[in-house]
Amino acid sequence: MLDTNKAPLSDAALRQLFLDARTYNAFLSTPVPDDLLRRLADLVKLGPTAANASPARIVFVKSPEAKQKLAPALSEGNRDKTLAAPVTAIIGYDLEFYDKLPKLFPHNLTARSWFEGKPAAIEETGFRNSSLQGAYLILAARALGLDCGPMSGFDKAAVDAAFFPDGKVKSNFICNLGYGDPAGLFPRNPRLDFDEFCAIA
Amino acid sequence: MLDTNKAPLSDAALRQLFLDARTYNAFLSTPVPDDLLRRLADLVKLGPTAANASPARIVFVKSPEAKQKLAPALSEGNRDKTLAAPVTAIIGYDLEFYDKLPKLFPHNLTARSWFEGKPAAIEETGFRNSSLQGAYLILAARALGLDCGPMSGFDKAAVDAAFFPDGKVKSNFICNLGYGDPAGLFPRNPRLDFDEFCAIA
Repeated sequence: MLDTNKAPLSDAALRQLFLDARTYNAFLSTPVPDDLLRRLADLVKLGPTAANASPARIVFVKSPEAKQKLAPALSEGNRDKTLAAPVTAIIGYDLEFYDKLPKLFPHNLTARSWFEGKPAAIEETGFRNSSLQGAYLILAARALGLDCGPMSGFDKAAVDAAFFPDGKVKSNFICNLGYGDPAGLFPRNPRLDFDEFCAIA
Repeated sequence: MLDTNKAPLSDAALRQLFLDARTYNAFLSTPVPDDLLRRLADLVKLGPTAANASPARIVFVKSPEAKQKLAPALSEGNRDKTLAAPVTAIIGYDLEFYDKLPKLFPHNLTARSWFEGKPAAIEETGFRNSSLQGAYLILAARALGLDCGPMSGFDKAAVDAAFFPDGKVKSNFICNLGYGDPAGLFPRNPRLDFDEFCAIA
């Protein structure tokens, strides 16, 4: 019989993605080249979204000027580490993501009507799927050897005004990217036991 | 100089996680053992969440009885393929996730007060972070050799009534799991170009 099962990734890969991966507060000075951000985006965009709508919009904040634009929106506890990180990704979602559906979901040209003029459907689909895409970014970054420091402690209205002034994109969360400095790590927090968050029915 | 950079995963691993991975509609009859679901949960729980709050609650629907309980809540287009899948994961979020913060975030015992009695903060944090955890589940499943079929086309109130009758957990999305049958694949849909969803500032 043909064995069609794919094998698990190596233990080293599982460690890099999950088991040894940590949220970093401090990063080494090693830069993150634009080419690596493009390679990251090429992985992120392949992750699944509802109706392939791909609502996430991402700004990689890298220049000192852009970091200074971000600074006033950061919470006190997140400001210094974020300004020091090589890159801060702002993950937002496009409130007019349905405009791209003719390209993204070409076999069903009525898909646009599921969202256009329906703010509740736009909000739910945009928020859920840009969150999924933000998680794809975290794991794709780790797969490429980068470390992450995701945060939701910031002034969303201020980020939106500074980076999405046309009002068509809402920020969801932000994520520092770089090569993590283990010296800045806290001990890992406990996690829930299987029965505390899972059931097999 | 010490090279502290981690290397990217192998091309084969990047293919399994992102480049060749697809949303599957049909699965082989190969079963998914409970032990593999536990191994999956052990990876998912390590992904980062805000204040480590880990709000996702997951039901792995596997038995014929549980599948029949799910059936009436599925949209017409999703029903047959979901009933045929070896496992369907329901990813929900606990509206009282703050009860677990003393265990999960032990160094700051005021964290509970950020959420308790604050329905808007519960909803935003629960929805965002259970979505992140659902994406970790998709990529952890792929890392373990499984394939996924995520969907948001179902009756959430009906799923909640059937699987979370105490009203404390809200469903977010569902995801079929198994070993995918390539015969059931559609061609991959187009994705956005870098400049359509990303900017480097």
